Amino acid sequence: MIARKINLKEKFSKFTKHWSPRVIAEMNDYQFKIAKIKGEFVWHDHKDTDETFIVIKGKMSIQFRDCEVKLSEGEMFVVPRGVEHKPCAKKECEILVIEPRGVINTGDAGGELTMKEDLWV
Amino acid sequence: MIARKINLKEKFSKFTKHWSPRVIAEMNDYQFKIAKIKGEFVWHDHKDTDETFIVIKGKMSIQFRDCEVKLSEGEMFVVPRGVEHKPCAKKECEILVIEPRGVINTGDAGGELTMKEDLWV
Repeated sequence: MIARKINLKEKFSKFTKHWSPRVIAEMNDYQFKIAKIKGEFVWHDHKDTDETFIVIKGKMSIQFRDCEVKLSEGEMFVVPRGVEHKPCAKKECEILVIEPRGVINTGDAGGELTMKEDLWV
Repeated sequence: MIARKINLKEKFSKFTKHWSPRVIAEMNDYQFKIAKIKGEFVWHDHKDTDETFIVIKGKMSIQFRDCEVKLSEGEMFVVPRGVEHKPCAKKECEILVIEPRGVINTGDAGGELTMKEDLWV
């Protein structure tokens, strides 16, 4: 069997760049991506899909137009499709993101944080 | 917005039964389920879908016909569709399972561990 186990800590040790998600696994047409985040991302939404955030280490918040959700290690949040959101982290935070393959990290918002291709780690 | 954050530890505190997964969230047509496992599950496969295991607390193994994968806290494994597997844990282990809605936990194997319906927690 080709599949291998994935150690999250080991995967996080392999890159340092913020807001630059790395694919670590695929399940059917979904991807598991890890990211190190710090500072503020851009407002965006994903018209056609929900998006799941799981905090692996540290703290983050997800700003919505009408509220802000604060997440700590061991907490998760499913952002419903079409809902504008802006991930933020005062200090570096490590997160696991789960969403369908092909989803653009910045939605239609564009900008310099947009991932041009899948980066695996 | 209706979505709420989910604290895994708090969700695990709400049930004790082994091999009885509880749905904690949905993302599109996928479900996030948590389970407490101890002992041996049954050999089974899922013909039409991959299945993801993430160990939240403790240790588990997944037996395959040709090998055994040992997983600790912070490790994950995507079992490919159609591959027979048997999850096991010598001591109680807490896991997060991600798979499409409607997947039967025992595949076609049946037996007393088969979940008859979704249980949310």
